[in-house]
This record gives sequence, C-alpha cells and structure tokens, in this order.
Amino acid sequence: MPQIAHTATSELLYLLHQDPAELREALAEMRPADIAEGLRDLPTDAAAKVMAALPFDLAAEVFDEPELAHHRCGMLLRMDDPTAGQLIDAMSSDQQADLFREIPEGERKRLLKVLPESARESLKQLLKYAPETAGGIMTTEFASIPANWTVEQALRFISEVGRAKETIYAIYILDPSNEKLVRVVSLRELVVARRDANAVEVGRQQPPITVSSDTDREEVARIISKYNLLAVPVVDDEMHVLGIVTVDDVIDALVSEHTEDAQKFGGMEALDAPYMDISFLSMIRKRAGWLCALFLSEMLTATAMQRFQGEIEKAAVLAMFIPLVMSSGGNSGSQATSLVIRALALRELKLRDWWRIALRELPTGLTLGAILGVIGFTRIVLWQHLHIFNYGIHYLLLAITVGLALVGIVAFGSLAGSMLPFVMKRVGFDPASASAPFVATLVDVTGLVIYFSVAFLILRGTLL
Amino acid sequence: MPQIAHTATSELLYLLHQDPAELREALAEMRPADIAEGLRDLPTDAAAKVMAALPFDLAAEVFDEPELAHHRCGMLLRMDDPTAGQLIDAMSSDQQADLFREIPEGERKRLLKVLPESARESLKQLLKYAPETAGGIMTTEFASIPANWTVEQALRFISEVGRAKETIYAIYILDPSNEKLVRVVSLRELVVARRDANAVEVGRQQPPITVSSDTDREEVARIISKYNLLAVPVVDDEMHVLGIVTVDDVIDALVSEHTEDAQKFGGMEALDAPYMDISFLSMIRKRAGWLCALFLSEMLTATAMQRFQGEIEKAAVLAMFIPLVMSSGGNSGSQATSLVIRALALRELKLRDWWRIALRELPTGLTLGAILGVIGFTRIVLWQHLHIFNYGIHYLLLAITVGLALVGIVAFGSLAGSMLPFVMKRVGFDPASASAPFVATLVDVTGLVIYFSVAFLILRGTLL
Repeated sequence: MPQIAHTATSELLYLLHQDPAELREALAEMRPADIAEGLRDLPTDAAAKVMAALPFDLAAEVFDEPELAHHRCGMLLRMDDPTAGQLIDAMSSDQQADLFREIPEGERKRLLKVLPESARESLKQLLKYAPETAGGIMTTEFASIPANWTVEQALRFISEVGRAKETIYAIYILDPSNEKLVRVVSLRELVVARRDANAVEVGRQQPPITVSSDTDREEVARIISKYNLLAVPVVDDEMHVLGIVTVDDVIDALVSEHTEDAQKFGGMEALDAPYMDISFLSMIRKRAGWLCALFLSEMLTATAMQRFQGEIEKAAVLAMFIPLVMSSGGNSGSQATSLVIRALALRELKLRDWWRIALRELPTGLTLGAILGVIGFTRIVLWQHLHIFNYGIHYLLLAITVGLALVGIVAFGSLAGSMLPFVMKRVGFDPASASAPFVATLVDVTGLVIYFSVAFLILRGTLL
Repeated sequence: MPQIAHTATSELLYLLHQDPAELREALAEMRPADIAEGLRDLPTDAAAKVMAALPFDLAAEVFDEPELAHHRCGMLLRMDDPTAGQLIDAMSSDQQADLFREIPEGERKRLLKVLPESARESLKQLLKYAPETAGGIMTTEFASIPANWTVEQALRFISEVGRAKETIYAIYILDPSNEKLVRVVSLRELVVARRDANAVEVGRQQPPITVSSDTDREEVARIISKYNLLAVPVVDDEMHVLGIVTVDDVIDALVSEHTEDAQKFGGMEALDAPYMDISFLSMIRKRAGWLCALFLSEMLTATAMQRFQGEIEKAAVLAMFIPLVMSSGGNSGSQATSLVIRALALRELKLRDWWRIALRELPTGLTLGAILGVIGFTRIVLWQHLHIFNYGIHYLLLAITVGLALVGIVAFGSLAGSMLPFVMKRVGFDPASASAPFVATLVDVTGLVIYFSVAFLILRGTLL
C-alpha cells in the first residue's frame, strides 16, 4: 500500500494531462489521503485544477485532510466564493479553525462571509482557543444523547446521525435538565449491552474522564493514550461539553510535538511549516535568535581565554587539547539533557526528583570521564613514544592534566546537562528548550576554567 | 482528572495499610490505568500485594496496561503458578509478547508451561517477530466475518464477541473459501448501513490498506495516522490476516520513537527502560560507546592544532577565539541536522532531494555566518577601543579574521549538518543517528582548518 503514496504526485500530474472525464474517473478511485498527499507537492494552480475535477464529496474529504493544511489557503483564493464556501462548510470544525488561523487577515473577513451564519458563529468561537490547547484541536461534531434513553434508542439514533459526526465510537450522555455531562459510553459497550437497558447504566460506572479547553495538547495526548480512549470530551467548569478531541487529532498533535521538540533540541525556534515551505527570511529569523544568544554566551570563552593568555603563551601545547577536552563536556551534557527532557515529558520524573538525578549523574559522569580520561592520557603518551609528535619533556604531566581535566569536565557536563531541563521547568519554560547547543555552551566556559585550573595545579613549576 | 494520576502511588501506599475489605473496595473504584501508574512507582513487594487484593477481572486489566511493562516480570515471580498463568492468559496477545521478551531466559520456560497449550503456541509465534515491527506490536484478537454475511448477521456477531476482541471498530471480511482478506469495514459503516445489505458491499469499495509483519512500527504509525484508521491489518504474502495493530499501540509506539529519537539526537544509544529503572552499568554502556567514538574523532582537532602549533606560538591571541568560532559551526550544524531529520521522518523530503536542501542551506548558512561575523568583529573592535583587552596593534586584522572565519564555518556547519542525515540514510543507518554531538565533532575539525586558513591569508606578514 505505501507505494501508492510515493507516486501520488506524479500520478496526479500525469492525470492532469488526460481528458477531464478520465481524470475524474481515475481520481474517484483514489483515497482522499493519497490525493491530499499528492496535491501537497503540486504547484497551487495544478492543485486547484485537480480539486475542481473531483466530485464534491471527495473534494470535501480531500480538503479536510490535515496533510493539505499549508496549501488550502492558496487553493481557496483561486476558487469562486460559492465553491469556497461549500468546501469550507463541509470541513470538520477543527480543520476549519486550523484553516482560518492560516488565512491572512485581509482575506479572512471575505471567506467568513461566504459561510452560513451558524458555521460562522461556531468557528469564531473555536478561533478563540490557543492552537496548542484542547480547545484549539477539538471538534464540535460529537454524538450526545439524553440520560433517559435506552440502549435501543441510542443505537437507532447513532445509525441515523453516524455519517455526520466526527466519531460515534464515544457517545456523550447528558443530563436532560441541564445538559451537563454525566457519563461517556462507548459504541462497543452499547453494542454488547442488552437492548432494553438504560444507556446510562451501560459500561463501567465511573465519572467521565474530561479535559478543559486550555489543557495542553500534549497532556490531552497523554490522557488519551493512558486510558486508551478514542476521544476525550472538552468541558467547561460546569461539565458542559464544548467539543471532543479524537485519537487521530492526538496523533497529529504528537507528531507535531515530536518535530517541535527535535527542532528546539537542535537549538532553534520550532518552525510552523514544512522545511521546504518556509521562506528564506523566516528561516533566518527562526535560527538567528538562538544562534546569536549562544554566540554571545560563548563569548565568555574568549574572556576566559584572555585570562589564561599567560598560560597559553608559556605552554602553547596546552591550547592543542582545548577543543577535545571542551567538546567532551558538551557531548556528555547533551546525552544527560536529552535523557532528562524525555523522562520529564513522560512523567517518569517530577520536578522534585532533581536531586535523585543529580546523585545518579555525578557517578555516571565521573565514570564516563574516567573512561575518556584514560583514552586521552594513552593518546598523548603513545604519540610521544611513537614519535608522532613531541609534547616536550613534561609530556607525562601534560597527559595527566588532560586525563584529570576530562574526568572533571565530563562529570560537570553530565551534571549540568541533567539539571538544565529542571531549571528550565522551574522558571516556567518548556524543559525541551534546553537544547544540545545550549548545554554545550554552558559547559564550554566552565570546561575551560576546569582545564586551566587542573593545568595550573599539575604543571606549576614545570611548564607554567 | 489528571490529578488522580499524580497521587495514585501514595493512595495505593495508604490503602495498603487499611483492612483488606476496604482495600478491595477502594481499588475496585479506581481505573485500571491509574492503578497501573500507581503500581509503577511502588516496590515490587507492595505492588504484588495490591495485585493480590484486586478482583481478578480488574487485576487482569491492570496487568495488561503497557505502563506496567517493566514491572510485570518482578510481580509474576512473586505469584504462584496458577495465578500467574491465569493473569498471563487474560492479557492481550501483544502485551503477552512484550512480557515474555522481558522475562529472563531461565524463568521463561517455567512461565510458558503454566499457559494453556493454545495460548503458548500463538505466543511462540508472536515472539518470532522483531519488537519494532508490525508483527512485534500486533495483537491476534480481531473480529473477522465471512464475505457472504449480511450487515444484520455481522452486527449480531459483533454484539456477541465484542467483549473478547481488542477492537470491534474494524471488521475484517474474509473470503470463505480461502480465508484471504477481501475488505475491511468499520463498525460505523455497518451501523449506518441497511441491515439486509451484504456486509462486503458496505462502505468505500477499495482494496484494504494493509501492512506486512516486518513493516517498521514507525511506518505503521504513519499509515494509521495518514488514513485515520483505528487499526491496520498485518497480512502475509497471500493476504491472510496475521493480526492487527490498533491505534493505541501506535500511540505507544510513537511515544517510544520520540524518546528514542531524542536520546539518539542527544548522542547516545536509546535506553530500553525508564531513566530511573536502568542500572548504572547499562547506563554507562549506552552512553560510553558514542562518547568514546566522538572523543576519538575529536582527537583530530588535537592533530590539526599540532599542525598549527607554529601559528599559535606566534600569535597566542588566535587561540582565544578557537572555542567561540568552533562552537558556532557546531550550533548551526545542529540546527540544520534536526530540521532535516524531522523532514525526512515526515516524508517531506526524500533522499533525492539532498541537492535542494544543500542549495537552501548554503545561503542560509552564509547569512547566519555573516550575522555572527558582524557581532564577532564588533566585539573585538569594541573591546580594543574600550580598553577592556589589548589584542595588539593588528587587532583590526584579527577582527576581520574572526569575522570571515565565522562566515565560512557557520556556512560549512549548516551544509554539513543538513547533509549528514542524508548520508546516514544513504548508507542504511537511521537518519536520526545523526546526533548534535556528531555534527559538532564533524564541524570542529574542519572549523579549525577554516579558521587557521583564513588567519594565514589575512595575518600573513603581520602576526604570522
């Protein structure tokens, strides 16, 4: 099956040159997700042409695919108002909200006008929620029934409204007097229940699992995954259902989080569009900020080096190992940071566990440092004895300096790297902002100080 | 709701000191996922005690939670054989396979023996698949019907077997003559269809989307997410259904992939257990490998520095900016690498797109390098004029050297960082293995050469 996906774009391009009837027929046999994936890589003009050739129902389904998200806007601007209005109206409410978040301010008013009154109002409502919260990814098309219905009534109702709802696998049972959520029952529980039973008495008798509209989408994902739900209701303070977040929205959210985390850990702001879609200028903007901040902090290394200028002039051989020694601290720090970021995200660790991690990272760092220290020591002694390079008569002291400095720097790197995400979280930032370059920079300056302090202790009276 | 989770462990600990009847009653009201999460942080003895107090059905559900994965083994060894056998038998087949992958070789035989013959055979079958493939995460409890049934028959069948299957939201229609998969129909499609229709004619008439047992779990996740499926069937070469992968397995797989990717990008082997559960020795093993490999490569910087020893001795002031200049290349490289890794994982980029990325990263890197270059240049000139540090009479040439070297190094860093994941993929590795420390190391050596080459060009005849 996956093969279909790889060729979807070229297939669509080929089809565009066939006669319209053939194009229509070939398209009708493709899956909406495949068409959407194919359209993604087409020029907007060609994509709009394909859309125009699709039967309306299929066009609506294709248009609803999150894969098309960054292209919908351009396509809409190439359609006449009635067609655009119909297409938008047929979208699910969460995708509508995503779409309008992307439409430039000027066009937004025009496109809102082509929508029917009711759709416009609920859309305006949805747009009030931040895009990374439950409110921002929820849909308002869910199936609800009053608490006094039987299983039989519920099943009949579901078979009637089934086509129009985002999911019918979770049914929300409301108190008929005040519309408050009293129970969630799954279609599975209904299907296996006695037909004349009261729907509210079916399944486990427990208060429903809910989230509020400002719950972070990552937390929503955690809850859906933990309780194996197909959807979770978003409720207000009085248990009125505002909408639901379905499991496929959560998967999309997880994939986006993964991408954002990776980009942040790489030391930049998260992009809000695919790599090839982002303009040159916004790419620079997203990257230059952190790069400059890191550069300015790293300037402290130059300041530190200036203080050690005397030592370097006396023993230029010391300078040779600076990059090696410093980078090892950054590398071990980067390992520790990535470990702790994920453990915090998965709730394996809590903020108050910081000292348990510190107590683990210190011996780990010392051991790793000792391993590298031995390799570093051996390297210098070996090069000297094999006459590859002449480090001078004090080569043994130099080797000891490098070895000991490595122990200290790697231990400090592990410790600092593991504590940084805790510090970020404590001061209210996303722990994932503790990037590998950030840790490296942090460790570099201290690493220099450690290196020259060890050198001073060991080489005083000989080289220094 | 989430509050429950945070206190589950302490609640369980408290309950353990109540009388058994009260413990039983309180536990019966908790959700399986919450009990599992609470048990996760309890000592194994206490956890086994809680398990013993649970009614069997609930105990089985708790035991089936993936959250308990790393603790099940220890609990089982504290139970008598009949209880252990019953619990294992009640688990879903994918969790059974996960469990037996964790059980030490010696105990495995004993625990296999307590299982009923049929369960043992299918388990042995499942254990043959690699844990990161569709076969490794699939379950064998799915609902299938013959192709000649009506919707009415199908619905009646589902209401009878509903409780025992992993999911009944996707129903697999098999050719009655040879058991081959002909169509997948969703419960939703069945529920809204005419009761006397043929089940096989319900829904979109397209060949089913399938995966094979060796499809990577990340690819399975991509397919489930792309086509918005609740489950995907795993088939052999002849379209016989071996099992299904459900959407909640995929979420767990996505979360694991995220963790693995983060750890790899941090420059280490992926851990196979939570941070606090892993032993000191395996932590060292997982981290020392890459750390040593990086250290050995980074030794090339020492070799490079040895070649430039003359320059450093003549102009120790040059050495001061080595850490600053080098780290900037690593930082921009780390940005580019994280961008490309994700774009490759999301299929936004394909292997053959490498030159398009190169053509984008080169101007991006040059621009970013120019920004840092101006800052670096200004820093040196400013320090000199404010009399913070005296770089000597040739400070302007030094400032130009640092500025130009930054342009070259940041551009090289961006280019190398963006190409590394392509290279990894091309030679058959996971592009995600292109870690931030890896890129930094790669760029460090070249960065030194660029720096000293620029210095030689500009400072020849003055400082050098």
